[in-house]
Amino acid sequence: MPRIRVGLIGFGTVGAGMVEVLINNRELIGDRVGAEIVLKRIADLDIDSDRGVEIDPTFLTTDAMEIVNDPEIDVVVELMGGCDQAMEYILAAMERGKHVVTANKALIAKHGRLLFETAERYGVDIAFEASVAGGIPIIKALREGLAANQIKAVLAILNGTSNYVLTRMTQEGLSFHEALSTAKRFGYAEVDPTLDIDGSDAAHKLTIIVSLAFGLPCKYEDVYKEGIDTVSPEDIRFAGEFGYCLKLLAIAREVGGHIEARVHPAFVPLDHILANVNEAYNAVYIEGDFVGPTLFYGLGAGRRPAGSAVVSDLMDIARNQIKGITRRVSPLSFARLPAKGLSLKPMDQLITAYYFRFSALDRPGVLSKISGVLGANNISIASVIQKGRAGHGSVPVVMLTHEAREKDVRKSLLLLDKLDVVTERTILFRVEKRTGS
Amino acid sequence: MPRIRVGLIGFGTVGAGMVEVLINNRELIGDRVGAEIVLKRIADLDIDSDRGVEIDPTFLTTDAMEIVNDPEIDVVVELMGGCDQAMEYILAAMERGKHVVTANKALIAKHGRLLFETAERYGVDIAFEASVAGGIPIIKALREGLAANQIKAVLAILNGTSNYVLTRMTQEGLSFHEALSTAKRFGYAEVDPTLDIDGSDAAHKLTIIVSLAFGLPCKYEDVYKEGIDTVSPEDIRFAGEFGYCLKLLAIAREVGGHIEARVHPAFVPLDHILANVNEAYNAVYIEGDFVGPTLFYGLGAGRRPAGSAVVSDLMDIARNQIKGITRRVSPLSFARLPAKGLSLKPMDQLITAYYFRFSALDRPGVLSKISGVLGANNISIASVIQKGRAGHGSVPVVMLTHEAREKDVRKSLLLLDKLDVVTERTILFRVEKRTGS
Repeated sequence: MPRIRVGLIGFGTVGAGMVEVLINNRELIGDRVGAEIVLKRIADLDIDSDRGVEIDPTFLTTDAMEIVNDPEIDVVVELMGGCDQAMEYILAAMERGKHVVTANKALIAKHGRLLFETAERYGVDIAFEASVAGGIPIIKALREGLAANQIKAVLAILNGTSNYVLTRMTQEGLSFHEALSTAKRFGYAEVDPTLDIDGSDAAHKLTIIVSLAFGLPCKYEDVYKEGIDTVSPEDIRFAGEFGYCLKLLAIAREVGGHIEARVHPAFVPLDHILANVNEAYNAVYIEGDFVGPTLFYGLGAGRRPAGSAVVSDLMDIARNQIKGITRRVSPLSFARLPAKGLSLKPMDQLITAYYFRFSALDRPGVLSKISGVLGANNISIASVIQKGRAGHGSVPVVMLTHEAREKDVRKSLLLLDKLDVVTERTILFRVEKRTGS
Repeated sequence: MPRIRVGLIGFGTVGAGMVEVLINNRELIGDRVGAEIVLKRIADLDIDSDRGVEIDPTFLTTDAMEIVNDPEIDVVVELMGGCDQAMEYILAAMERGKHVVTANKALIAKHGRLLFETAERYGVDIAFEASVAGGIPIIKALREGLAANQIKAVLAILNGTSNYVLTRMTQEGLSFHEALSTAKRFGYAEVDPTLDIDGSDAAHKLTIIVSLAFGLPCKYEDVYKEGIDTVSPEDIRFAGEFGYCLKLLAIAREVGGHIEARVHPAFVPLDHILANVNEAYNAVYIEGDFVGPTLFYGLGAGRRPAGSAVVSDLMDIARNQIKGITRRVSPLSFARLPAKGLSLKPMDQLITAYYFRFSALDRPGVLSKISGVLGANNISIASVIQKGRAGHGSVPVVMLTHEAREKDVRKSLLLLDKLDVVTERTILFRVEKRTGS
């Protein structure tokens, strides 16, 4: 049986998961692919800790360049994370004719172009299924399974930590900080969860999705991003009253030749299949022009799901190697980028529905003042909830709007927040309109 | 740009969908694959009807063998349905070195082995993504995306007609026959919906899934099958009271080296992601040993989704052809079948939880009589609902059991239905136990 020899750089959580898959499912992998995938060497600064997998100690090295330079290694798997060092090893490996598998979403999002050009120059494969939505084979779906479709929209829950926190806030009424503590306690949030909570992690993944779905090389910096730290249990309750839940969504949508690319908390209709994606699960909802709506759901992180994705990439490369080919599918999903390219839509041109929560003095005429300013800025109100007196003079006035332009919304809120009847900064969330399941 | 030339046999609903994709997304397909997929000829007995796609009339023929014999055609797409004729054309095409794409689930389920052996003998590709779950790229997911996993279980909603009927019964309280009429009226059921309603269609698809997931060549005849015509709104209401809904599930599960393969209406916990799959949608829930639980959701039938799947197969074959290879991935998903093979579990050995609805006389001691017989046959009751008098002497007694053996259940019901206090044949449904979403 042919053998594909693998070197691993980075023996952390995902690295250990990959090794575990290769050991546990060695026979299955051989049966499916018709080749043996052999782990030959592992580099990590820490070569002493027990990762819960049995490894011949002579496999271990602290010098990643030993792997990069090993002529017997066919594929380098980069799972160390970070950008500069990882980039250096990957480029060096490709220059030496080695294929690369990585789970490094930040690296692909920020330096994808250079990585893909280098892979092309040296005629090697670069695969990164584990970088988006963990174990869910979403990159394969976009590149191959749904390849016949013009993708119209992608709505995705891509950050398990945020989804876990929002689930706790929704189901138990916890505050953001209480829910985040719970997430940390149960291992769903890192000690420093900033990149998960502020939308950066989801934005990295969305950057990759935009490139694959639309053939639009997208820069991470161009993806609009808001985190979930502004979400309160109060807004989640109001969302429920309007028939919605609150999710951190990564949205990529084509509207008239322009692509929206944005990550922010959003109202999702309760009868939308995404509304049922709870706990630390990820899900990617894709609308294609022929396939219609689809959903891909599963665990977006963790040792075992990520290990599954990394090994499926290795099996793909092994299948190429058996046939003596490389680069069967373009890493960017397009063999050539579309001639009439799409462009990113600036955020202030976004048109969507909105939720506002005003803190207003409980006086006659307040609602008329607020709706007057909105109306003057082309924002029309779809529904309003005004609850009784809160006791301290201020009451929440919440409303859903019809479709409006982000620019007009921003301008209106600036004006409204200056009114003497508005006592606190107005809370804003964007609303994904009601759709059939 | 390289060209892949395609001949189509069967210009019905799916055929027209495929043609529409090839016309509408010609540029996109070229951009993604780097090859042109050219439709060269279409065979159908009816070459006059308008299919809503623009076709050069000289492309049309009533003689399918013209396509099979055309040396310029690289791929034959069989979308005529039926078994004998379709088989003949496909075998003849493969003998002439042509690749084959088909959506014919019955053919694959019944004659897969001969088809795959023939494809191997002549070194051609055979692809059938559209045969299971329509537009959802589930075959690619099982063969490639999740290939690193031992599949533990597949729970799937594979028949859109049945799911639509059950949705109407659940949401509007319609009877089976009323819901089926509605389905026909809105185009979700054929004039003769027998194969959809009696579970045959789902069983065909499950046969294919079992082969791909477990490397177990499975015969259609060996898949246990029950339809939805025994489902009543009453049982759906009771399911709701217990925290479940009723779905037609196709289940393949590995338990201790044996594979369950069964299609029947089943209780699904309301917090399971499958419980939210409504209307005519399909969904495939897959548990892998590393990836954990995943769900793939979308439209399982119809011109456009099926067209998407057929063309994604064509693009796969085109990608092989560009690289000068064939048979990169085994059609059966295993390059060699597993050495220690699994075997199908006989239905009477199934162990699962059950729902019973007894029609019993409203007399003291009835419940004790029923539970006595169950207990004597190793069936223990988990919960019971006994409603008040129905007026005509008989009342429903419904219960959920703990796990029990199908054989014991069958035996008990035979005994119980002979009791004079049991007035009608007892209704039985199997229960998928509560799981975290």
